[in-house]
Formats: sequence, C-alpha cells, structure tokens
Amino acid sequence: MSGSSFGTIFRMTTWGESHGPGIGVVVDGCPAGLPLTKEDIQQQLNRRRPGQNRFTTARQEGDEVEILSGVFEGKTTGTPISMEVHNTNQRSKDYSEIASYYRPGHADYTFDAKYGFRDYTGGGRSSARETIGRVAAGAIAMKLLSSLGIEITGYAKEIGGIIAENFDKTQIEQNPFRMPDAAAATKVEAYLQQKIAEQDSVGGIIECVVTGMPSGLGDPVFEKLDANLAKAMFSIGAVKGFEIGDGFAVAKACGSTNNDAFCMKDGQIVKKTNHAGGILGGISDGSPIILRAAIKPTPSIASTQQTVNRFGEEIDIHIKGRHDPIIVPRAVVVVEAMAAVTIADALLMNMTSRLDSVQNFYLP
Amino acid sequence: MSGSSFGTIFRMTTWGESHGPGIGVVVDGCPAGLPLTKEDIQQQLNRRRPGQNRFTTARQEGDEVEILSGVFEGKTTGTPISMEVHNTNQRSKDYSEIASYYRPGHADYTFDAKYGFRDYTGGGRSSARETIGRVAAGAIAMKLLSSLGIEITGYAKEIGGIIAENFDKTQIEQNPFRMPDAAAATKVEAYLQQKIAEQDSVGGIIECVVTGMPSGLGDPVFEKLDANLAKAMFSIGAVKGFEIGDGFAVAKACGSTNNDAFCMKDGQIVKKTNHAGGILGGISDGSPIILRAAIKPTPSIASTQQTVNRFGEEIDIHIKGRHDPIIVPRAVVVVEAMAAVTIADALLMNMTSRLDSVQNFYLP
Amino acid sequence: MSGSSFGTIFRMTTWGESHGPGIGVVVDGCPAGLPLTKEDIQQQLNRRRPGQNRFTTARQEGDEVEILSGVFEGKTTGTPISMEVHNTNQRSKDYSEIASYYRPGHADYTFDAKYGFRDYTGGGRSSARETIGRVAAGAIAMKLLSSLGIEITGYAKEIGGIIAENFDKTQIEQNPFRMPDAAAATKVEAYLQQKIAEQDSVGGIIECVVTGMPSGLGDPVFEKLDANLAKAMFSIGAVKGFEIGDGFAVAKACGSTNNDAFCMKDGQIVKKTNHAGGILGGISDGSPIILRAAIKPTPSIASTQQTVNRFGEEIDIHIKGRHDPIIVPRAVVVVEAMAAVTIADALLMNMTSRLDSVQNFYLP
Amino acid sequence: MSGSSFGTIFRMTTWGESHGPGIGVVVDGCPAGLPLTKEDIQQQLNRRRPGQNRFTTARQEGDEVEILSGVFEGKTTGTPISMEVHNTNQRSKDYSEIASYYRPGHADYTFDAKYGFRDYTGGGRSSARETIGRVAAGAIAMKLLSSLGIEITGYAKEIGGIIAENFDKTQIEQNPFRMPDAAAATKVEAYLQQKIAEQDSVGGIIECVVTGMPSGLGDPVFEKLDANLAKAMFSIGAVKGFEIGDGFAVAKACGSTNNDAFCMKDGQIVKKTNHAGGILGGISDGSPIILRAAIKPTPSIASTQQTVNRFGEEIDIHIKGRHDPIIVPRAVVVVEAMAAVTIADALLMNMTSRLDSVQNFYLP
Repeated sequence: MSGSSFGTIFRMTTWGESHGPGIGVVVDGCPAGLPLTKEDIQQQLNRRRPGQNRFTTARQEGDEVEILSGVFEGKTTGTPISMEVHNTNQRSKDYSEIASYYRPGHADYTFDAKYGFRDYTGGGRSSARETIGRVAAGAIAMKLLSSLGIEITGYAKEIGGIIAENFDKTQIEQNPFRMPDAAAATKVEAYLQQKIAEQDSVGGIIECVVTGMPSGLGDPVFEKLDANLAKAMFSIGAVKGFEIGDGFAVAKACGSTNNDAFCMKDGQIVKKTNHAGGILGGISDGSPIILRAAIKPTPSIASTQQTVNRFGEEIDIHIKGRHDPIIVPRAVVVVEAMAAVTIADALLMNMTSRLDSVQNFYLP
Repeated sequence: MSGSSFGTIFRMTTWGESHGPGIGVVVDGCPAGLPLTKEDIQQQLNRRRPGQNRFTTARQEGDEVEILSGVFEGKTTGTPISMEVHNTNQRSKDYSEIASYYRPGHADYTFDAKYGFRDYTGGGRSSARETIGRVAAGAIAMKLLSSLGIEITGYAKEIGGIIAENFDKTQIEQNPFRMPDAAAATKVEAYLQQKIAEQDSVGGIIECVVTGMPSGLGDPVFEKLDANLAKAMFSIGAVKGFEIGDGFAVAKACGSTNNDAFCMKDGQIVKKTNHAGGILGGISDGSPIILRAAIKPTPSIASTQQTVNRFGEEIDIHIKGRHDPIIVPRAVVVVEAMAAVTIADALLMNMTSRLDSVQNFYLP
Repeated sequence: MSGSSFGTIFRMTTWGESHGPGIGVVVDGCPAGLPLTKEDIQQQLNRRRPGQNRFTTARQEGDEVEILSGVFEGKTTGTPISMEVHNTNQRSKDYSEIASYYRPGHADYTFDAKYGFRDYTGGGRSSARETIGRVAAGAIAMKLLSSLGIEITGYAKEIGGIIAENFDKTQIEQNPFRMPDAAAATKVEAYLQQKIAEQDSVGGIIECVVTGMPSGLGDPVFEKLDANLAKAMFSIGAVKGFEIGDGFAVAKACGSTNNDAFCMKDGQIVKKTNHAGGILGGISDGSPIILRAAIKPTPSIASTQQTVNRFGEEIDIHIKGRHDPIIVPRAVVVVEAMAAVTIADALLMNMTSRLDSVQNFYLP
Repeated sequence: MSGSSFGTIFRMTTWGESHGPGIGVVVDGCPAGLPLTKEDIQQQLNRRRPGQNRFTTARQEGDEVEILSGVFEGKTTGTPISMEVHNTNQRSKDYSEIASYYRPGHADYTFDAKYGFRDYTGGGRSSARETIGRVAAGAIAMKLLSSLGIEITGYAKEIGGIIAENFDKTQIEQNPFRMPDAAAATKVEAYLQQKIAEQDSVGGIIECVVTGMPSGLGDPVFEKLDANLAKAMFSIGAVKGFEIGDGFAVAKACGSTNNDAFCMKDGQIVKKTNHAGGILGGISDGSPIILRAAIKPTPSIASTQQTVNRFGEEIDIHIKGRHDPIIVPRAVVVVEAMAAVTIADALLMNMTSRLDSVQNFYLP
C-alpha cells in the first residue's frame, strides 16, 4: 500500500530509512511564487536535530538539507519540491543484535508480521529519522501559512506528570524541554536526571496553538479539519492520544459550560471562550486552534526487558545504543510540521468552496 | 472539496441532509460474494435510531433502509452498494427560527463563513442524521470482518464523570446508556434526570474494543492504523478527544512500565500486557485494539444562551425542539461503524504487502 | 477496488445496475451557490434516453431524475448532490438466457473471471444505463462551466465510414445520429437500414469541442488535462480510441507543419492554428479543445455468433432483446458529460496554482 | 495541485527539472520481497538515454541511478523506493534565449499562463528528462510483472508514414528506431536523413503488447484497465492519440466482424480473435493487451518559426541546441514503463475483489 503520502493538494511523500544513504521528501502542490531558500528548511531541521543537549541522544546528525527541484531563482515553481538529507552517522553495529529479537514498544514484530522480514538497522522506516521529511515539508507549509499571517507554536505542556502552568513563549527555546514555563522545566530536569539514572524513559504532552486562522477551513463530514489534524498527529510514531480544545475534559462538562457563546468584537463575530479549540463542525471558526498530543515514553531503554526472539524463545534483553530518554522536545518540531502541512492543505482545498470565488478567479 | 468519502479500497460516500428527501451512502470496493441482506443493515440502524427511551430525542425516525444496488441473489457483487433511508419525520417549523442566528457549539457560523449560506433546516449536512450512512456502511464492514472472526464492541465508558468500573458485556444493551456496568448506569440515570431538569446536556467517553485482529494491518508512516482510526473517530461530529491503549496516561508513564513485553503462548508470539492498545508502529500486533473517544455535551440546550444573529446583533436564545440530552449511547453505534469501516479498509490494503501473497494469488 | 468515482475536487460516484431498483450518482465538491434545478439535469438525461427514434432501442425508459440532497432554495450548498433515477422498465426475462453463456464483445466473461459470478440481468454494472449517473453529473458540471462562458458541443463525426464533412451546429439535434451535416446523416440512414436488415450493428467517431476555455487548466505531468480527458473517454464502455487535436495524424506530420505558431490578436497571445487541440504540455492554452473518441459497434447483435457457456461448451447464440444498432448518437451525450466533469475538476484544481491567488483569496 | 503521482497502490511520484541538481522518483506500494538491484533499473535507463546514435540528440547524459531507500539485502522492503539520477550535463547557456519567448509546440506559454513564470532552462518540468523517473519506476513494475510471467514489448509501428509491416522481435533493438522490421527501418533512415537536412522533425506510432496477462485486472466503471492505460500514455508529453485493439478502425467495423468469438482451447476459455486488444468491459480477458500511442514530431526544430515573446511582440525564431529529430525510439521505453506501472497497480488492486480471496489470505 502506498502509505507514505499525506495531503490532497499540498501533498508530501516521505522516503528513507535511518541507515540507508539518505532520508527525504517530495512536496507536491505548493503554489508557485513562494520565496523559499535552503535556510528556511535547515532552520526547522536544526530544531529537530538530536545531540543538542544531554537530554537528547548523543548521536551527532548533521542533517544538512539539499533542495533538488521545484525552486527557481528563489521561488517555488508549482512543481514538486524534492528535498534530501544524507545519512552521515550510521553506526550499524549498534543495531546488529536487534536483528534477532523483537524490542518491546517498537515495530520490529509488526514489520516482520506484515512484510515477512525487516530492515533491522536503526529501526528502518520506523526510525525517528523518518520525521526529517515531515519537518522539511512542514517548513515549506509554514512559509506559506506565514505569508497569510498564520503562525504555529508548539511546546511541551507536560512531561512525566509535571505540567507547564505558565505560558511564556520566550521560554520555549530557552530550556532543553521546550517548556513555556521555566519553573516547570527545572522540575522536569531533576525528574529526568533520576529517570536516566534508573535507565528509564518518560513521556509527555505536547500542545500546539495556531493563530491567525481564517474561518472556513475544513469540510463538514470526513475531511473535517480536526479529523485531519488527528490523523496527522497519530501518524507520528509515539503519539497515543489527541485532543482539540477542551478534549477529554468535555466528557465531564455540560452543554451550558462547554458551548462557546458568540459575540461581536470590532465588528467581527467572535467567540467569548474557546472550549471548541477553534473548530466547529469540522470547519475552522477563526479562533486559535488548540490541540494536544500525548507522547509515550521512549521504548528503547537500557534496563532489562523481557521479549522473544525470532526463533520463538523468551529472552531478557538490554537495549544498547544512544537513545533519547524523552522525545517530547524534539517531537514538538514534528507536531508543528504536521499541523502546518494539514492546515496548508485545508487552506488550498477551501478555495473552491463557493461559486463566487470561482467566478472571481476566472472571469475578467 | 469532495470531503464526503472515507476509505481507499473499502470506501463509503455519504450524502443527505436531515430535512431533505433522504439520507444515504454508497459503499464501493466491498469484495464480491459477501452474503448481505437488508436486515444486516437495518439491525444496526435500529440501534442508532432515536426515540428508543426518554433519554434520547422524542423524534420518531423510522429509518428504514433500502439497498438499491450491488447485491444480487443475496450476495455482494463487487460493485457499489447504494443504500438509502427516506426522511419521513421532518418538522421544519421547529427549525425555522435558527435560520437567523448562530447556535453556540454548532456549525451554523462556520457553514456561513465557508459557503456563504447554509441549509438551516435541521442542521443540514451537520445533522446527526448524516451518521445513518456511516452506520449502514459500517454494517457491511462488520459483516465482512465477522466472516474473518473480527468483532467490534463499543460502549459508554464514562458519562458526566461517572465511570463504568465493571465490564459486563451483556449489560451494554440492557440500559439506555450502553454502559457495561449496571450500577454505573443507575447513577448516570439520576445524574441525567437532574441535568434534564436544568435544561442542560452532558458528555462522556466511548470505549471500543476490537477482538480477533490479525497482525499486519496498517502502514508504517501516514496510513498507520491508529492514524486512520483517529481520523475516523474525529470525523464524528461531537468527538473532541481520541486515544488508543493507555492514551493520555502514557504522558505520566515510564518506558519500563509502558512497554509491553513479548512472550510465547500456545506457540504464538503475544504480549503480556496491552498498553499499546493493539497497534505497534502503526501496524496491528494481533492483540485487541482498544480505543476511546471523548464526546462533548449536546450543544442544543433549552436554557438561555448568548449568541449573535446574521445581522451582527448580540441576542439571547432558547433552542426549542427535540434534542438528546446526551448523544453518547447513540454515538456508540457510530463509533463501532467507523471502526469497522477503517479496519475493513486496512484489511484489504494489507493483502498486497508481500510478493509471496501476490504470487500465491496469480500463479497456479 | 473502489472504482466508481471520478474526479478529485469535483468528484462523482456512480452506482446501480440496469435491472435493480435504480441508478444514481453522488456529486461531491461542487461549489456552493450554483443555481440548479431538476430540469437542468432532466434535459440532459432526455437527450441520452433511448426510444427516441427507430435507430435506438425500442425500450421506453422514463429516466426521471430526483435530486435528493445538496440543493437548498434552488442553489447548491457545497455538500454532496445525490441524484437518482428509478428503473421502471426492466423486462428481466429478456435476459434470463444469457446467464449461462458469455456474449462476445461484452463483459460477461471478465466479470465472472474477476468476481466469481455476475448480475446477468441486463448487463449489470456494465449496462449502458450506468451512464445515466455520468450524464446527471455532467449536467451539473456544464452548468458550472456555462457560468464561466465555457461550452461543450459533441456530435457524430463519422458513422460506419461516412464522415460529416460539413459542420452546421444547428443540424446536430435535427437528425437521429447527431451529425452536424444533413447530407451525411441521410447517407448514414440508408447504411444503417441495411445493417439493421442484416441484423448487424455499426460504430463511429464522436468529436467534441470545448470553447471559451481559460488557459492554465491541467498539470504538467500525470494530471495533464488531455490525460484526464483520455481516461474519462476510455471509461465509457464502447470507446476503443481517443485523440486530441490532430491525433493520430501527427504520426505522419513534421514539426514544421504540426507546431502551432503563436501570434497576437486583439492584444492577446493566440495560436494561428490548433493542431494541438487546445492543450500544450498537458495545460490548456486558451484555444478550443478538440477531441475525438472511436466507438465500437454495439456488441449485442441478433445474427448468429459463436461463444462458450459457463460449462465450457462451444455454442451458437442469437442475442434477443431490444438493442441499439448504433450507440454513437446516445454516446455523444455521455462524451459531453465526461468532458464537462473532467474540465470542471481541472478548473477547480487550477485555482491553487499560484501564491498570489491564495493571498488574494485570504488576505483582506 | 499535486499532479506528480501516478497509481493507487503501486504508486510513483516523480520530481525534477532537466537543469536542476537531479531527477528522481519515489515508488511506494511495491510488495516486500521482490529482488531488486541497481542494474535492474540502470538497464532500462540506458535504453532511454540519448546520444546512442546519430538520430538522437548528441547530448551525453550519464543517467546513472542510485537507489536511496526501500531495498534491504537485495530485496524490496515494502517501504518507499527512492531513486535518483544526477543531472551532469546541463549546458544552460543553450537555453538562455528561450526565456523570453514561447516556443511553438512547447509548454512555455501554458506554464507562464498557469504559474506566472517558469523555469526556462531546458524545459523545466516539461523536459523529456522527467521521464527518467517513469522509466526507473517502470523497471521495478516490470520486475514484479515478470515474476508473474507478464512481459511487455514496445516498438515503433510507424514513423513518418512508413509502417513496420513485419514483426521480428529480435530486430527491435537492432536498429536506431526500435522497429521490428529491418526493411521499414532502412526506409525510415533515408526519410529521416532528408528531414534532418531540412531542419525538420517527424512523428510516429508506438505499439505495445503485453503477454501473459491474467484475466480480471481493471474495474468495470471509471478504473477500467484501458482507461488507466489511456491516461498513462497521454501523460507522456508528446502523445496525441491512443487506441486499444482495433482502435479507430472500429468506427468502420460492424458488430459481426468486431466481436471476438469465445472458444475452448486446452480446457481454457479463449477468444478466436483479439479485436478488443485484451480488455472487455474495462477488465483484462487473458488475451494479450495491444495498445498504440501516436507521438507528435519533436517540437524543437532548427528551421524558422513564428512566435511571440513575453512582451507581446511577434518574432521569428530558430531553436538552437541538441534535439532529437524524432523521439519515437526513446519514447518506446517510456510507453513500456507506463504500461508496466499501470498493470502492476491493477494487478494489486484486483487481489481484493472476492471474499474467498480475502478469507484465503486471513483464515488459517
């Protein structure tokens, strides 16, 4: 099945394994005329890159991107934009042992069950390096959205049960966890030190806010904007939960408290509250979109685990190698990228919704 | 945008408004040879139908289905199966007033923002009646899954903060809330009586379990089985949260507790626990799939609400008409249907994953 | 496989067999605000309907369409438009014999090979009645195109070797063959009388011209406008050849004669000739689109034919029943409809090609 | 619009311009376990490569392919196969002049009309080099088909009005025109010499035969196998006509002569003739598929042509540079590749057509 593409008009197709020659993405359907440089892409890849502090894997990955097509004299041409990052730091021997057994929490077993065998070096297609393509595509989507005043901000809302109670946007890139709350980040640091000492890993919750949203994006039935955001987020490997607006809290709410009253402000129809998280009936309502994704603890841990090998023997294992004790901070960048691609696609889709728009476009 | 289709191989296209002549669905891509009768469909529609007890809307909707194509001599032919339910109980005058204003929590405003106007009778395309098509398609998918030993069971896990602590499958259809716990259902009843008296509404959480799952369903990257389940659930109007397995609880977990150890049982590789909810790396692992969806309180409530009308005036409204004080019990049927369609599609997709399967199919 | 949908944004899904309860289509993605009445559809269906003269089948098919959704107060709402025609004149006994053997030139054998059995009444899904859905969808597309000044005209260019040398548009609907040349039509009539007497059937060529085309429709690579027109035409049952502009004649041409020189006319860039048929590099150039489709002789003929039955016995057959000795005139309406749907889809797709268009749409 | 992908399950996405860093393709949905080497791809690319004799452009293009993903230990893994060819011989100054005007028969004008500007170096995305990606993808499809006994053979059937009357398969790769008739090739050579002297170019017809076809491939309505082959062929830049089986000749035929009688042979149902070209009702019937594509003369010719420049001035031009006087021989390889990809996709699609196949796959 051709499951490596995402989006209908603004569409990305990712490829690559962590230990092959490279990782890449083809972005098709980006409108012509968008100024785009290698730096636009590299800047986002650098945010995703490991090895930035002691709470991410010590692997050094250069992740330098090349734009191979679709840009001419500094602008997108409307044709596919192919981007590629060479894999330069593969230490295959770290992974040779795992060929024979199934790591708990990983896709080793399901790959074998589905395909009959697997590329066991570095997780193959299920490696976190696959997200490089998403981040590169997301950088283009962000550039497009930004030209329309739409901005996307992701951050760690909760790590290991420690919640960012305050929101200070300037803090996000100031601590290793991308938390918008310095005090919470300090607590997380202590907690994480302990878990590293225990050879364990932790999970968390990423929140992402999209401001400057036009109303009208998304469709009433299956292509609801929140449905596509849900798919986008759940396509990220470690995500186990997704919510929009008040999310699971609505289960305990009443209609009288959960409904957002409409009111007038500066001649515009707005909502007094935003329990809905910016989407009503699957269509953006102009309020900020607020979404959250639950990220599971890194499955690769050094402490002893029980599993079976491919010969059907029960064994104990210790996973070696360099692994993030938490992937939440780096996953923030992927969440932003997936949100950007999803919204860019909905934005383009929405342009054909009304006859008057079609006539404005074609009739002189 | 053509947003009324769902699925790639097993694909449904729904149509219809609550106050038009009818509601329907076309199911394309169902394999030929599946025994199918009108009763298979009607049985599921009856479970979804309102007016079954005092906790659902008093509207009587017959919802009698017709199969118009794709079945010959009691079996599916492999060609599109068109199904239709006539709308017989439209009381349009109940809805005439809402043409002028935007109901909080509804899609009235976003429809106008997107399309320039809307069918204001009965919610138009955003009516809960749209789900009739989904349930009809889901009934076919369930028949297909059932022929392979796959069964889907949904129920209310939580309503208004009251949790079903016990699981007794036989209880589900014995109380108006589809709760698998009679004691919890009794508490919900009292709570709901109070909320009805307050002219208010409540939300809840639906849990759905899929047993008999083969491993190998779903794809490693964007077409992950959980990603498509997330989209499927979020395409249901009132859903604001979705999780699989331990869901949001993973945010507080550690790798050592969240990973599911593999072991051998009866010569098969199985997992000792199922924190993952039956999916690893986007691919089914053979364990039961466990998912939950958070359902918001019915937005139509009789108590006073603030909103604006289409002339930009702030007004107070009281929504009249017959509305469910809670939609969770009826939404259970829709959740099951969407799960069935999603899994049926993944099931067919997976058949081309390996060369040996292709060769087994074509070579004598 | 879900093969009953066509188009990406403007998308139709057809369903129905000739001898089931009805035939229909769901059109999704039509922009909101298009005035649409039942008569817009019925008018095109009437042109397709059999029984209009002695050169079409004597079957009387009322083919009265119902619009079941997607239109509110006379305008499309942007949601799916479901249309249906009841089958009222099924004479199943005419077809009972063919259940046992494979008619030459029909899909009986391939249906059995693919699905294991078939709906043998009236050709099932391969019946010409399937095109009712296409014509209904095409009527909507034509209404949309017409609002932009785009007009589609199809006609019989050649029947049984007799070519329409002259083009008089007013003649097309004046003779039973939809030929734009009265003299040619007279010759065809004589020829067809002879073939009917011989219990035989004839084929022909349909030409279709689209005027008022904007430039820019279609994509450079796989979604070329001509590629989608080719698929559209070849999806019509009897089509065995398709060409655009000079078509197969280019095989004998030289670059110096086949290239269309550009020149200026009234301040516009136009082409001096139109060998290309209105499409360059897959993208419309503003000239009229000219296409032709070759239609095979009706395979159902009364004269003796050799075939095999499902028990593997070689037999002689005489096909009974009421069949068109030529389907070209009725197929003209289907060719127009498929052209309309294809161009409507390309028209909507093209609206997102440029950043400035996106910014014009979203920025105040 | 995302128009650079082709296929539904077996799906390719091409990217690249002739004068950018490279050209490539991502093939998604290829079954796991197919043996694949770089040589499998290179062999087909070498057949497409220019500079092989004096009747193709003198440009030397190395076109050495790299496989960047999706193959592990010599076998496909089921994940995307990314392939790339670096552009090594760009002589951009050859093309600098054409930035200012619109070459007749090329897509220069339509690109500007659609996108507002264009990559004018070497034809950008409309360069024949785009077909490198198709040929690479086709090589994989051929490997897959070959493992099932399906073989594809393309050749020049007609060039400049000179028809290959005889078919000797061994001749095809023995002359510069890929004609299966040595005598015809000799005539073509003389004709082409003359046209080269006249600074002109010629067109032709490519025929392609697919043997070893299983029956059952393709769908009854829009996804007819011939409809997808038509789209596939018309997506090749220079194609202006397509036919299957008897093609346009059916317009002059009668039902009694055009129908293919069924008969028994070695216990199998076969057809006595193959006017249908191997497809009935859109579904393969087990006979060889026979298709033809009409290729226009190379639009780039050195003799004087009239056109306009981007300032709206009428000018005379002489196109410089290295151009094929005929592209038919090289296009043969592209036709084969597109046929292979189309059939591979239909082959995988067809595997889910019947319930018994689904049950055979999943039930022990």
